[in-house]
Amino acid sequence: MTITPADIFHDLEKIRETAPLVHNITNYVVMNTTANALLAIGASPVMAHAVEEVEDMASIAGALVINIGTLSHDWVQAMIKAVQTAASKKIPIVLDPVGAGATPYRTETAKALIRAAAPAIIRGNGSEIMALCDAGRTTKGVDSTSGSDQAVSAAGALSSDIGCTVCITGKTDYIVSADHTMTVKNGHPMMPRVTGLGCTATAICGAFASVNADFDKAAAHAMAVMGIAGEMAVQAATGPGTLQLHFIDALYRISKADIEGHLKV
Amino acid sequence: MTITPADIFHDLEKIRETAPLVHNITNYVVMNTTANALLAIGASPVMAHAVEEVEDMASIAGALVINIGTLSHDWVQAMIKAVQTAASKKIPIVLDPVGAGATPYRTETAKALIRAAAPAIIRGNGSEIMALCDAGRTTKGVDSTSGSDQAVSAAGALSSDIGCTVCITGKTDYIVSADHTMTVKNGHPMMPRVTGLGCTATAICGAFASVNADFDKAAAHAMAVMGIAGEMAVQAATGPGTLQLHFIDALYRISKADIEGHLKV
Amino acid sequence: MTITPADIFHDLEKIRETAPLVHNITNYVVMNTTANALLAIGASPVMAHAVEEVEDMASIAGALVINIGTLSHDWVQAMIKAVQTAASKKIPIVLDPVGAGATPYRTETAKALIRAAAPAIIRGNGSEIMALCDAGRTTKGVDSTSGSDQAVSAAGALSSDIGCTVCITGKTDYIVSADHTMTVKNGHPMMPRVTGLGCTATAICGAFASVNADFDKAAAHAMAVMGIAGEMAVQAATGPGTLQLHFIDALYRISKADIEGHLKV
Repeated sequence: MTITPADIFHDLEKIRETAPLVHNITNYVVMNTTANALLAIGASPVMAHAVEEVEDMASIAGALVINIGTLSHDWVQAMIKAVQTAASKKIPIVLDPVGAGATPYRTETAKALIRAAAPAIIRGNGSEIMALCDAGRTTKGVDSTSGSDQAVSAAGALSSDIGCTVCITGKTDYIVSADHTMTVKNGHPMMPRVTGLGCTATAICGAFASVNADFDKAAAHAMAVMGIAGEMAVQAATGPGTLQLHFIDALYRISKADIEGHLKV
Repeated sequence: MTITPADIFHDLEKIRETAPLVHNITNYVVMNTTANALLAIGASPVMAHAVEEVEDMASIAGALVINIGTLSHDWVQAMIKAVQTAASKKIPIVLDPVGAGATPYRTETAKALIRAAAPAIIRGNGSEIMALCDAGRTTKGVDSTSGSDQAVSAAGALSSDIGCTVCITGKTDYIVSADHTMTVKNGHPMMPRVTGLGCTATAICGAFASVNADFDKAAAHAMAVMGIAGEMAVQAATGPGTLQLHFIDALYRISKADIEGHLKV
Repeated sequence: MTITPADIFHDLEKIRETAPLVHNITNYVVMNTTANALLAIGASPVMAHAVEEVEDMASIAGALVINIGTLSHDWVQAMIKAVQTAASKKIPIVLDPVGAGATPYRTETAKALIRAAAPAIIRGNGSEIMALCDAGRTTKGVDSTSGSDQAVSAAGALSSDIGCTVCITGKTDYIVSADHTMTVKNGHPMMPRVTGLGCTATAICGAFASVNADFDKAAAHAMAVMGIAGEMAVQAATGPGTLQLHFIDALYRISKADIEGHLKV
């Protein structure tokens, strides 16, 4: 099983044509970046975190993206309510367990969210995915200390357990299901020097999951578009500051030819 | 009644010379963008949302900008307190009812804020303005589903009712009072692909309202400067990412000649 | 006592090699900017503000940066807990008293934080530093109304009282201790037109304090790198919008030759 430029572009066109509403409950650091990335790719982002409205907002969304990067008590309550609503309406949930493993609070919150409603896709770095499996607890802040490779078997177990797609991003991205693993090898070493590109990858998974119910493919397509846009952006950038903006431009402009020319699986 | 380049530039110069303090209680997504836009145009932005300090901060401001893009209970309390303080001190209030119509919580909060103290200017997209008038409830997330044109009569009713300027932004911007309507036709189709430019328009209304007590003109001048800066920025941009930054540069550089050369009413 | 290009570059290399974890409890406006600045310089930023996890996160950090730009009750509680934890583990604390003097709430919170645990470095503009000494209360929003020069004697008293380094930024930056003062004269007049560069300076102090226990030098090295990166960025910028991104690029690229060529003390 693999992904093709034609399939990726098919989903991308669907996003651009239908502008799916992606409801984000995400961290303060990346709200602007992820909203811009979703708009650039053609989706319609909304941020809403009040317990008073998360049910209403999640109910009208094409996907719900939950990111625990800057947690606090009220936000966790709202996240729980939102994922339960989304699950009851069969709206796909994408979870980013930012910093799981760095503090018990983050690890426990991520696990509580998974128990409240099974995500369609979990996307994290190697350390974070391993923390969810109790396979290690070595996250340094929000940066990974585990090689992605080491985390793949943990991801397989997590995927079997929950019945979801697990996406580990790093130099190689692994999209792991109970019975198979796909890889995406696009991207550039400067990308981790831009804050929130992991969170953006999660949000883009939300956009793809809203148009493709095969969540393995949705996640892989999202990772391919992220990586290719990153490679395109690096051409125009003089460092991580300008990379951040050229990356948004690349998401906006990315064409079938760009995907055909760059895709590495 | 219309606006002229000379009048727009007069207000702009006044902002640049006096650096009015604009107190924003706004959403997480756009705080950085709106602060940068206000600085670029020559104003002095401050963000403060604690109930413990909003009265003190609103009291020393030239304008108060309230934006409900990422609400929660405590923030609503602070917004109410801030608008009451501003009203008691005759400090103009500009309200952005982000996502009114998308959830009852947003619609009700926007209405409660209006009841607490009449804004000088309400700025929103067509759906949001109609939601405030109970003329429709069709907002999809935070993006408009109503043509601006459809919303103009609703805006007229709202303006009469509250006694404020209502500014509907879209392809054409409508600045609506009880008895007349002005239009501004500047801007570029790529602008809605940058998150928070609507919120930025609201913040810029605050800067203009702090130097011009004719709030119809203040709003129209703000929309003209926004649209012209957007057109200038598009020349240098390769997509919505770079547009966001070149837009800030254009706000910083915009001259009388730029306004004379671009203004479309 | 002064600073040298060799010493500055030595610290910078140490940051780049060890990627110290810098724990930030900072304001919403600048979270993205400061995270990107810390990543660009080679540090590993994390943002975490929940009372449930600040002790765990502060405990594993190389430095703790506290910024009161957008306060509220729960955040203040978390800040107090975080500084007490950091102090007990001998982790250097850097405090940015944003807007001290503008409202009593900010002034009192900044003083309460200092009482809870002595910072290694306090960085602010002239008005803010004077507000901490009760030497004046003239802050307009978050922008300084005092010349840096006027604030130097207040800073000396504050430094003696607390036993910390006080860093006043402005046209000239003053790094003040009980018994001596250093200056850094780098930077560019366009820099204050970018929101949050003061907050970024504070965060960069955190990175330097994590690798150099001489906090006077750490603060001065941070100011030199900020100012030089700003000068480099202005060359490529067409206004404050593009400056913000080129500044991040400059932090990423800054070399020993850049420091040697630009340093003004």
